Amino acid sequence: MFLKNTWYVAAWSHEVSSTTLFSRTILNTPVVLWRDGDGAVVALQDRCPHRGAPLSKGRIEDGTVRCMYHGLKFDTHGKCVQIPAQDRIPPAACVNKFTVVERNKWIWIWMGDAALADLSLIPDTFWLESPDWRYQPDYIHYDVDYFLIADNLLDFSHLPFLHETTLGGSSGYAESRATVDRLDNGVKITRWFTDGPPAPFVKNLTGWTDNVDRWNIYDFVLPGVLLMDSGSAPVGSGAQQGGRDGAVQFRSAQALTPETENSSHYFFSQAHDFALDQPAVTAQLHADIVAAFKEDWDMIHAQHRSLALDPNFKMMPLPVDNALGHFRWLMNKRIAAEQSLSAAA
Amino acid sequence: MFLKNTWYVAAWSHEVSSTTLFSRTILNTPVVLWRDGDGAVVALQDRCPHRGAPLSKGRIEDGTVRCMYHGLKFDTHGKCVQIPAQDRIPPAACVNKFTVVERNKWIWIWMGDAALADLSLIPDTFWLESPDWRYQPDYIHYDVDYFLIADNLLDFSHLPFLHETTLGGSSGYAESRATVDRLDNGVKITRWFTDGPPAPFVKNLTGWTDNVDRWNIYDFVLPGVLLMDSGSAPVGSGAQQGGRDGAVQFRSAQALTPETENSSHYFFSQAHDFALDQPAVTAQLHADIVAAFKEDWDMIHAQHRSLALDPNFKMMPLPVDNALGHFRWLMNKRIAAEQSLSAAA
Amino acid sequence: MFLKNTWYVAAWSHEVSSTTLFSRTILNTPVVLWRDGDGAVVALQDRCPHRGAPLSKGRIEDGTVRCMYHGLKFDTHGKCVQIPAQDRIPPAACVNKFTVVERNKWIWIWMGDAALADLSLIPDTFWLESPDWRYQPDYIHYDVDYFLIADNLLDFSHLPFLHETTLGGSSGYAESRATVDRLDNGVKITRWFTDGPPAPFVKNLTGWTDNVDRWNIYDFVLPGVLLMDSGSAPVGSGAQQGGRDGAVQFRSAQALTPETENSSHYFFSQAHDFALDQPAVTAQLHADIVAAFKEDWDMIHAQHRSLALDPNFKMMPLPVDNALGHFRWLMNKRIAAEQSLSAAA
Repeated sequence: MFLKNTWYVAAWSHEVSSTTLFSRTILNTPVVLWRDGDGAVVALQDRCPHRGAPLSKGRIEDGTVRCMYHGLKFDTHGKCVQIPAQDRIPPAACVNKFTVVERNKWIWIWMGDAALADLSLIPDTFWLESPDWRYQPDYIHYDVDYFLIADNLLDFSHLPFLHETTLGGSSGYAESRATVDRLDNGVKITRWFTDGPPAPFVKNLTGWTDNVDRWNIYDFVLPGVLLMDSGSAPVGSGAQQGGRDGAVQFRSAQALTPETENSSHYFFSQAHDFALDQPAVTAQLHADIVAAFKEDWDMIHAQHRSLALDPNFKMMPLPVDNALGHFRWLMNKRIAAEQSLSAAA
Repeated sequence: MFLKNTWYVAAWSHEVSSTTLFSRTILNTPVVLWRDGDGAVVALQDRCPHRGAPLSKGRIEDGTVRCMYHGLKFDTHGKCVQIPAQDRIPPAACVNKFTVVERNKWIWIWMGDAALADLSLIPDTFWLESPDWRYQPDYIHYDVDYFLIADNLLDFSHLPFLHETTLGGSSGYAESRATVDRLDNGVKITRWFTDGPPAPFVKNLTGWTDNVDRWNIYDFVLPGVLLMDSGSAPVGSGAQQGGRDGAVQFRSAQALTPETENSSHYFFSQAHDFALDQPAVTAQLHADIVAAFKEDWDMIHAQHRSLALDPNFKMMPLPVDNALGHFRWLMNKRIAAEQSLSAAA
Repeated sequence: MFLKNTWYVAAWSHEVSSTTLFSRTILNTPVVLWRDGDGAVVALQDRCPHRGAPLSKGRIEDGTVRCMYHGLKFDTHGKCVQIPAQDRIPPAACVNKFTVVERNKWIWIWMGDAALADLSLIPDTFWLESPDWRYQPDYIHYDVDYFLIADNLLDFSHLPFLHETTLGGSSGYAESRATVDRLDNGVKITRWFTDGPPAPFVKNLTGWTDNVDRWNIYDFVLPGVLLMDSGSAPVGSGAQQGGRDGAVQFRSAQALTPETENSSHYFFSQAHDFALDQPAVTAQLHADIVAAFKEDWDMIHAQHRSLALDPNFKMMPLPVDNALGHFRWLMNKRIAAEQSLSAAA
């Protein structure tokens, strides 16, 4: 059961072009994406109504798409505008069009009722398109239910263990308790780890060896978007009081989109606000993040395989899980509301 | 649900020998094939009644087959004739024998009630064993329900799209409407595309650049056999009136045999009646056909994956689908009749 | 349905160490194994109660194990002794500990009720740790129900067929009838094949060409352990009367442990009592055994695939199957008793 009336990230801007068709399955639904003559992104169901062939194996013709199995042509509204060897086009010859919005390098898609698509609900990720930040966009595919990945992102107490040599650092980080504020659409998590050793990836970037004050402050909002302000500053530079003198700052944008019940898309980026003219710094930061996310990928797939052996296993909630507990509760509430709404309709 | 009382192609003649056992699963049933001392093809259930081991992993001994797990030996009727270390052979120690007929390089098998096996129902593919024709026999395995492949063969309007650079050619071909005649055991499809550019594979063979009159005239008969007369001739040479002066002619024999509900065997050949002494022409024609059939394979598997995401998807029939609609209707009628017959028995 | 109150082989001694965690799934249950400070083997459920992560991806710390997802630490009794960032440890924070016993290079595990674990039930495999015998320990993974492998080991009439060029030899071996004695916990099988050619692997070891008297005498006991005395001696040397002059003798220890309903662990060894100071002889014997077991692996997986095509297939019992029939009957009886016991509790 997926939440449908919400914005999901469908793709990075650079993945979708006006010359080739791009296919991605979202919530069990295959979607084909391309750009029309004005560069606007079009998203249609990637399944020809005729015999179910993927439109994405077709061809862009003057901004429309032609199915290359039997030649049906669809405009950007999903309406069939040509059927070879027949004059009349049946009204049923159309495919779903999905509402898409491109904003700050992410293409957002609304898989539910288009009438409910509210642009003001799209999270702000301004730093993905700001001259003050640098990052390398990336994507990982998971063969697990996306909740297992959300769990991971909602509890950073795993950093000093799973990511000991990458994002983590000293075990003291796990002892620093995070503040969790419940939001209408998710949770806000604030964690300060003061006077501790810098994280390995920060050491790699800065060469720092002295202790630092380190913060991870992020919203994790429906349906699975992480927006984080993080960084490290010399101890005593007043970072926790808002000062950023001498600090290195990061902005993360990460988004989870279910592909199927058992597979997921994971879009991510880690931007930095220093060394803006040094691509090697951006590359180094990215490489360290990818190494850490590979650790997550390995652990979460191992967790998935272990859970698959025992469908009766119940997770044991701990205090560190209050953020993910609230998120799962919120998701279930929204999904139930959506289901009862569609049952009533 | 498969149609059982019908002839399926089990193998090409060259696949079955008197020295090695050949295994192919047909309608969910493993079948072992070999030749007896007279060269006649034998087909038995490929599963020893003792513990279920495949006889095809066994050994031919004087025309009989010995299971090489525990040594039971079966004659060409499927009757067990030896069990090591025991004198009495229980009557149940036998495997099904299937009726097989070898004709024109194809080995046909009847998977249903042997009493109903009527040789006169075997389609005529004389050109597979005629000095007037040349071809290269071939086979492709599909991981899809065989109806999806039958659909493809029953509607050539996909040629100019899916096979644009191989079998297809100009989009005008798709506009040429085919005549569909309903047969008791299938459909006859007649398509003339006059005064159009030659198909790419014909250009490759002939070097022709001028327009041609092109025809595809074929029967597609139960359970999934295509028998086609096709060709191209110079415009105005009277091909549509029956003349073949200056024409290049082809005969296709293609047969679909279900392996399981979700996998299929596809036997095919494309014979030519010119350049009989030029093996390079045969090889070129075959290579072009294989390239085109790879396009089908890719599309049909993609279609299969798309359909698997939505079991509720209903195909939208178009006029070009009347042949495949009739074929599916015929198959369903025959299967239902067979089911009610066996329920009565 | 597995038999739980019995000893299974979990590992060879050399597979488990005090420095790395070893994971093996047994009866659908993931188990993590390591050695404590005294070298004693510890076996816990390999699934953290917190979020289901495998402990085996964790770290040994002073003989305890730390989950490297969120840092929970467990002692050798499976009791959680540390949870980062929280003082109180909930009583439910523990994992199952399994009773394990290491004896003669095999680590035995009791997956059922620990109170019923009776050490006297562990089969005697003294030769695995005796200076009078040499062997190379090994392991094969199967993707089949373990009963299919047990069937194979319970009926050596397959040797001259499946293992014609390895363990087998002349077809006369299959005609030599085995004596089967029913035991409370399995079967004893005694087979003498006198005045026959030596088995190919014996020829490889000895260079013998003259006929021999050959014996295979083994217990096959619950839940799937084969303990065999086998060998060959010159004809007329009185081997069948107990003499071993001029004989080559072997001791086999082989154990089957279900991984899941459709996959199995197979531990095996073939020890010899001659040429004790010639590692090349041990290596040659092992290579011949592995070659033969590869023949079993191929056949049993082929049998499994054939059976999967027809769930209604019933095996046809023959006299040679009386040992395996008794074994299956015993297993079913024990499993039923165990089920009714736990239903009553």
